Amino acid sequence: MDERRLANQVPLGPVANATGRGDPRLASPPSMPPPRIPDPPPPRYAVRGEIVIRAGAIEKELEEGPDAPCNAGRSYTSLIKCNIGNPQQLQQPPLTWFRQVLALVDCPGLLDLPGVRDAMPADVVERAAAYRAGFGGSSGSYTDSRGALAIRQSVCDGIQARDGYPADPQDIFMTDGATPAVHMACRLLIRERNDGFLVPIPQYPLYSACLELYNGTLVPYYLDEDAAWGLDVAHLSKQLAEARASGVTVRGLVVINPGNPTGQCLDAANQKEVLRFCAREGLVLMADEVYQSNVYAQGKSFTSFKKTLRDIEQEDGARDGGAESGQDWSQFPLMSMMSTSKGFYGECGRRGGYVECLGVTKALADEVYKLQSISLCANTGGQVVMGCVMSPPAADGPSRKTFEAERDAILSSLARRAATLSGAFNRMEGVSCNDPEGAMYLFPRITLPAGAVKAAAAMSPPKSPEFLYCLRLLEEEGIVTVPGDGFGQRDGTHHVRMTFLPPEDRMTDVADRLSRFHARFLAEHGGL
Amino acid sequence: MDERRLANQVPLGPVANATGRGDPRLASPPSMPPPRIPDPPPPRYAVRGEIVIRAGAIEKELEEGPDAPCNAGRSYTSLIKCNIGNPQQLQQPPLTWFRQVLALVDCPGLLDLPGVRDAMPADVVERAAAYRAGFGGSSGSYTDSRGALAIRQSVCDGIQARDGYPADPQDIFMTDGATPAVHMACRLLIRERNDGFLVPIPQYPLYSACLELYNGTLVPYYLDEDAAWGLDVAHLSKQLAEARASGVTVRGLVVINPGNPTGQCLDAANQKEVLRFCAREGLVLMADEVYQSNVYAQGKSFTSFKKTLRDIEQEDGARDGGAESGQDWSQFPLMSMMSTSKGFYGECGRRGGYVECLGVTKALADEVYKLQSISLCANTGGQVVMGCVMSPPAADGPSRKTFEAERDAILSSLARRAATLSGAFNRMEGVSCNDPEGAMYLFPRITLPAGAVKAAAAMSPPKSPEFLYCLRLLEEEGIVTVPGDGFGQRDGTHHVRMTFLPPEDRMTDVADRLSRFHARFLAEHGGL
Repeated sequence: MDERRLANQVPLGPVANATGRGDPRLASPPSMPPPRIPDPPPPRYAVRGEIVIRAGAIEKELEEGPDAPCNAGRSYTSLIKCNIGNPQQLQQPPLTWFRQVLALVDCPGLLDLPGVRDAMPADVVERAAAYRAGFGGSSGSYTDSRGALAIRQSVCDGIQARDGYPADPQDIFMTDGATPAVHMACRLLIRERNDGFLVPIPQYPLYSACLELYNGTLVPYYLDEDAAWGLDVAHLSKQLAEARASGVTVRGLVVINPGNPTGQCLDAANQKEVLRFCAREGLVLMADEVYQSNVYAQGKSFTSFKKTLRDIEQEDGARDGGAESGQDWSQFPLMSMMSTSKGFYGECGRRGGYVECLGVTKALADEVYKLQSISLCANTGGQVVMGCVMSPPAADGPSRKTFEAERDAILSSLARRAATLSGAFNRMEGVSCNDPEGAMYLFPRITLPAGAVKAAAAMSPPKSPEFLYCLRLLEEEGIVTVPGDGFGQRDGTHHVRMTFLPPEDRMTDVADRLSRFHARFLAEHGGL
Repeated sequence: MDERRLANQVPLGPVANATGRGDPRLASPPSMPPPRIPDPPPPRYAVRGEIVIRAGAIEKELEEGPDAPCNAGRSYTSLIKCNIGNPQQLQQPPLTWFRQVLALVDCPGLLDLPGVRDAMPADVVERAAAYRAGFGGSSGSYTDSRGALAIRQSVCDGIQARDGYPADPQDIFMTDGATPAVHMACRLLIRERNDGFLVPIPQYPLYSACLELYNGTLVPYYLDEDAAWGLDVAHLSKQLAEARASGVTVRGLVVINPGNPTGQCLDAANQKEVLRFCAREGLVLMADEVYQSNVYAQGKSFTSFKKTLRDIEQEDGARDGGAESGQDWSQFPLMSMMSTSKGFYGECGRRGGYVECLGVTKALADEVYKLQSISLCANTGGQVVMGCVMSPPAADGPSRKTFEAERDAILSSLARRAATLSGAFNRMEGVSCNDPEGAMYLFPRITLPAGAVKAAAAMSPPKSPEFLYCLRLLEEEGIVTVPGDGFGQRDGTHHVRMTFLPPEDRMTDVADRLSRFHARFLAEHGGL
């Protein structure tokens, strides 16, 4: 079975054993005290894995001050956290629009304080009142399992404005971030070990982790680094055929667009190929679109799979007179996921998100509703912000100017920082870094000396060469990154994922430290 | 295997099949269009089940106004929702303390508005600043997977004040409501079909739903209705022995205290029996204590299992010189769950909660940390409110008076409403209702006429007699309740769960409607 699994997959360790889940070492026969349980291997969910744990320990030491003995010889007094897409932790300011609406929804009594009502923009006051009414009068109540209708209406308004096609609140499920939607997809579609999803490599390791948790099979498809991380449908077909030949029932295709960690934006033609592929092969398409508001490259833009689906539906209808293509696009199964965590809003801690479920059978919708019922509802703060993200201030509203200024400042700064960092990487020996078209990450490919490969293999337990690289980068320069094997990569290549989120005024320092470290690391390990 | 399962258990339908999960009817061979899928049976998670779905339809009709034809003959113009513990939906006001802190954490810019800083109590400003700093400057950031340390410290402060024993922030995991903690317990302890939990009957059906979702076995123990829903350890032992004899490995014991739907408060002596039982039998104790702030009965109070555990530890140590009892209480495995949804705070939509994990091996703690890492962190709004719940305004702080007044008003009103409703039930023919010692529900036992039993069995598909009772109560009086079979009950008995949350000024009307309906229902079905 291993050959079906992703090379370099992030195993979750003993969470899932052969029959299900749970740690078999916790077994104890009745009436006897539990046996002493040996320490487990460390957790391997890369974005919060071993490097990050070590970073936490270093951070504690740094708190003792630069003169403390444990900090002797350190060239940094604070860490630069580039491991996780957590913008506001790195001083990206929250947008005024979201926070004002949130505060008034939660604490309407503020409006009774002198001066507050006059100071608050009218569109904020109005939106907060609408959401509070949509919650039945208080954000403290449970809402409908799908989320409050007023919020879902805002989401639909935003989808329509973005795509030019309407959306139905009945198809919208508010979720605590995008992650629960992935769990939902697994619970619905993964019935047994041989069920699987096609997952892009490199990928955000939530997909591998969930497939492991739900005891399914990950079928990898490799994005093409030499073609700007492009998605090749012929390759998809090949991977699918091989999986089927080894007994895997592939239930769905995951596409992350813009990509994580790779940042590429798919164009509409590519998306149509993907949609036709899924329709042909009977796959559910899971479109992870959480970075849709992070697009930087000239000539690139985000197109939702929803829009492209509706476009195809119109084109086929026009071509065939609606009768002969054989594909009923109105029934195409698409799960489109969105979140408040990314974009220019960066409201990660809010845990806001939604999934739009299309063309899904009633059975699936009922299952979703039932599972949602157990977790009762997505948190109301996250619902508010998701509604505000999809439905920003109206063009003629008093909040609009500030909203646009704050948004544009963040996005242009992200683009500049991305360029600074990717430029630095591309100047480093043996490193090539694709332009970040979108998202928040760079994923440079790093050629490592044989000496480093050897040193990593000699560690106890043995590590990947990029793990060693990232560990030394942390220890020597205080920069926290994630080794590329956490995301998957073609055998024999080594990558590092690094966000470009540190504040702009630190970026030059970050780039310099990286360059110096890289040169040192190569030299210490025998050069390329 | 069925005999091990709870009679009247709420099956979740085809979410979990014999091998795992997922709806087998969704299977489709590769390369063929999916077959038409028959409609599934309706969801059976009782608190949001069929009665509630019908209530939603009625509510839509009511929106058309009393003169609309669909509302002809209805004796009510709005529904009275007594099915779910959702206090603020029924106009229970949120506490000022929680909402002010939340608003200032999320929108610190408010303090720059003229008059706001003066109007806000100093302890609110201080707490909001501390939490915002604890979040690294913004509530928009992801926090530590366990939740921000500042929040966990507040939780520990509250546990210490409540119990007289300290708590360690390392043992605290902030969760989105209490529900995720139950999922965590299942993932950690249920390895295969024959693993199970002892679960009280009646129970809040989250436990049966989770056991079904994770493919484990529910081993029921029956609370004694004739002894105020008391928990009898001899009965626990018997249920455990029978389960083991049929091949079930019981991994844990669930205790809901105060109970849901039954409201009983365990006394310390009973708790000690339970603890000794768990220790003897090698069971993890899962203490669902979300109603700890809802205790009404004279002479009753809430004691946490944490406190009783530490009490036993001291008593055994004093007795044995610490060496001979054979039980190392410091290693006793206890998961204590708490939430922002209940009590007098009623912040359900916030999705705030925590679990305190004690005496848990490092392996378990690492598993918890790893699983938490996938869902990244509990939402920050929920963390803020949970911190504020456990650590209310200091006795000498400016918010204290208002806090106490608001709290006491809510709690005394709840006690009065409980008494009004349970008095009404106990005056109804063939109904007996235990005094609500705590929580938010009444669970009266209703003797139903043979005619009703017959009529229910003749429905298509057949229903339980209490389902028919609740359905007619909804249709005729607009009161939404939950049939008792959703919670489990001894064979041959019939119960209804009803909250006493409707506003006090509606309570007499509610009691009158109930009484009239009951008399009518009995008469229409041939009397008792």
